[in-house]
Amino acid sequence: MNKKIAVLPGDGIGPEVMEQAIQVLRCIEKKFNHQFEINFAHVGGAAYEKFGSHFPESTKFVCQKADAILFGSVGGPISESHLAKWKDCEKNSILSLRKEFQFSSNIRPAKVYPELKDICPLKDSIIKNGIDIVIVRELLGDVYFGEHRTFIENQLRKASDLCEYNEKQIETVAHQSFKIALGRNRKVTSVDKANVLDTSKLWREVVAEVGKQYPTVTLEHMLVDNCAMQFFINPSQFDVIVTTNLFGDILSDAAAAFPGSLGLMPSASFNENGFALYEPSGGSAPDIASKNIANPIAQIMSLAMLLRHSFELVEEAQCIENAIQKTLQAGYRTSDICIDKEKAVTTEQMTQQILYF
Amino acid sequence: MNKKIAVLPGDGIGPEVMEQAIQVLRCIEKKFNHQFEINFAHVGGAAYEKFGSHFPESTKFVCQKADAILFGSVGGPISESHLAKWKDCEKNSILSLRKEFQFSSNIRPAKVYPELKDICPLKDSIIKNGIDIVIVRELLGDVYFGEHRTFIENQLRKASDLCEYNEKQIETVAHQSFKIALGRNRKVTSVDKANVLDTSKLWREVVAEVGKQYPTVTLEHMLVDNCAMQFFINPSQFDVIVTTNLFGDILSDAAAAFPGSLGLMPSASFNENGFALYEPSGGSAPDIASKNIANPIAQIMSLAMLLRHSFELVEEAQCIENAIQKTLQAGYRTSDICIDKEKAVTTEQMTQQILYF
Ligand SMILES: CC(C)[C@H](C(=O)O)[C@@H](O)C(=O)O
Ligand SMILES: CC(C)[C@H](C(=O)O)[C@@H](O)C(=O)O
Repeated sequence: MNKKIAVLPGDGIGPEVMEQAIQVLRCIEKKFNHQFEINFAHVGGAAYEKFGSHFPESTKFVCQKADAILFGSVGGPISESHLAKWKDCEKNSILSLRKEFQFSSNIRPAKVYPELKDICPLKDSIIKNGIDIVIVRELLGDVYFGEHRTFIENQLRKASDLCEYNEKQIETVAHQSFKIALGRNRKVTSVDKANVLDTSKLWREVVAEVGKQYPTVTLEHMLVDNCAMQFFINPSQFDVIVTTNLFGDILSDAAAAFPGSLGLMPSASFNENGFALYEPSGGSAPDIASKNIANPIAQIMSLAMLLRHSFELVEEAQCIENAIQKTLQAGYRTSDICIDKEKAVTTEQMTQQILYF
Repeated sequence: MNKKIAVLPGDGIGPEVMEQAIQVLRCIEKKFNHQFEINFAHVGGAAYEKFGSHFPESTKFVCQKADAILFGSVGGPISESHLAKWKDCEKNSILSLRKEFQFSSNIRPAKVYPELKDICPLKDSIIKNGIDIVIVRELLGDVYFGEHRTFIENQLRKASDLCEYNEKQIETVAHQSFKIALGRNRKVTSVDKANVLDTSKLWREVVAEVGKQYPTVTLEHMLVDNCAMQFFINPSQFDVIVTTNLFGDILSDAAAAFPGSLGLMPSASFNENGFALYEPSGGSAPDIASKNIANPIAQIMSLAMLLRHSFELVEEAQCIENAIQKTLQAGYRTSDICIDKEKAVTTEQMTQQILYF
């Protein structure tokens, strides 16, 4: 197996947590006798400094040559947001990657690790049945890539954004969500705003059609406003959620709060050929960068996801996930997941422990 | 004071909780020596049965003649959703009212009553500084009333919805939110998706301009995805939130979960002349209708809001709010807010207690 991985550490805590993931990858290489070709490339503010672009041609080239992309995080501190380096940094980096490789769906688990239920923001009475959700978010339609306009009409400033969907786009993510549900609790909740939007009516119709091909999976439709509320009052009801780009953006960030820290959950974006990018759900957290305190778990879990989905290395992925679980069970905590901050371990200590298991 | 109130009980628990609010109104009339003219009218499924429309002309007429509207709730059970009576019921009732009277903003408090903090879904550690938010939602712009299209293109079904804002619409709610903040903790958080949407960029620009006229109020901008997450991890940071129609729909339903029951919070929708409609944040809850178990507090609080904002009867409103607080402090609980359901009081008992205080 001589697979190529494009590694894009990015900004903030990106480089340091990526370093941890690479250590884990090296360990997997030894243990399972693999060799991966790793090609680093710049993205975000780090790329802007070198190339004057958040997603330069050289980075695109590295990604094109790769079998999978491991992404860190991008973006700078609010105090520096006036600098050209940070202006539209997330948007330019992330939306360019999605567009370039036509990543049409984003998959994000959101769960409460039983070991960490004390740091879940929800009361024990709400989470007593556990939270274990996979959110499938459409990535190329909706209001993201439709026409954006700013103009003057009757002497007033006006703006508009066009929200669009076609049935193909919806079918793709619908199939993906039903397939994922087959390997889980066989329930798909499709979230839309079909009482107001035509795109949501089409969404609901197409998801229902696709659902007929998966007779063993229960399909439920839910309005986005209700779903946001259900996240607080009964999150255990969800298995797989499939939703539009904008609602997915909002709901998956809300769900990122369930585990108790943004430093815990990976995510993956796929195109129709199965090519994928893997990244932590959290952001670049510039306030804690370079302090050796960031939680490396989301980045290491992203690597595990990459091995499983892009390289079909299930055993290797499982090995990493088990090591993380054991590390958490043994009580190791970075400060973001530690109730008694005094006892927190560093980024590197956390990784060492994962490597040890 | 001979003010006219249009009373629209609607469906589900609407009529029974409205009955409680009317009792409270009668009590206020006696106590403060007022007389209000109450005109009942049908809306929702109840109206459809009589007039074949969810918002019939006769109801419109009653509302036009009134000084304020007290609304219950509309909509039927899921099991009956195929019936014409319930099809698009919420949308037809609510959006018609908004459009007819040009209600441009919706104001919704979302707080944790200290007496009820045990039923807030968030952990004590998260809510230790309290939650007390007012959400100001724009109601006539965004993707709600823009062009909705469903069509075929290249043999594919397609749909689109147009999201639109002009500066006037934004100014109106911005002013309102800053004025509200002046009477509170002087902080406004404006929520948008300015990293993707042109309408959000305009939103941010106009809110910032309006903000300059309120130098004692702190203005903060936040992306909607982050805001949804902050609701879980640090809801105490918010004072007044001002946001677009669609984001407001999602965020205000999410925030409706904070108090621990949908039966607790009122809301008000205003037009530019100050004419307003008052309604509970929750829905028609058909599953618990006619059982004398629904919580009447949201409806009674809606009445208090009406007296304060539409009739400037501050003392009368305060009197109702105090009575509710005392009732909660004395331990009276309907089943939705009662941890030990056995001890729950009925809808009527709850009202009697409020009347007693
Ligand atoms: C940076 C931004 C354009 C992006 C999005 O809205 O999709 C981000 O919030 C995300 O969820 O990946
Ligand atoms: C019924 C529906 C059209 C409405 C909306 O989306 O505005 C409702 O959800 C609300 O929040 O009042």
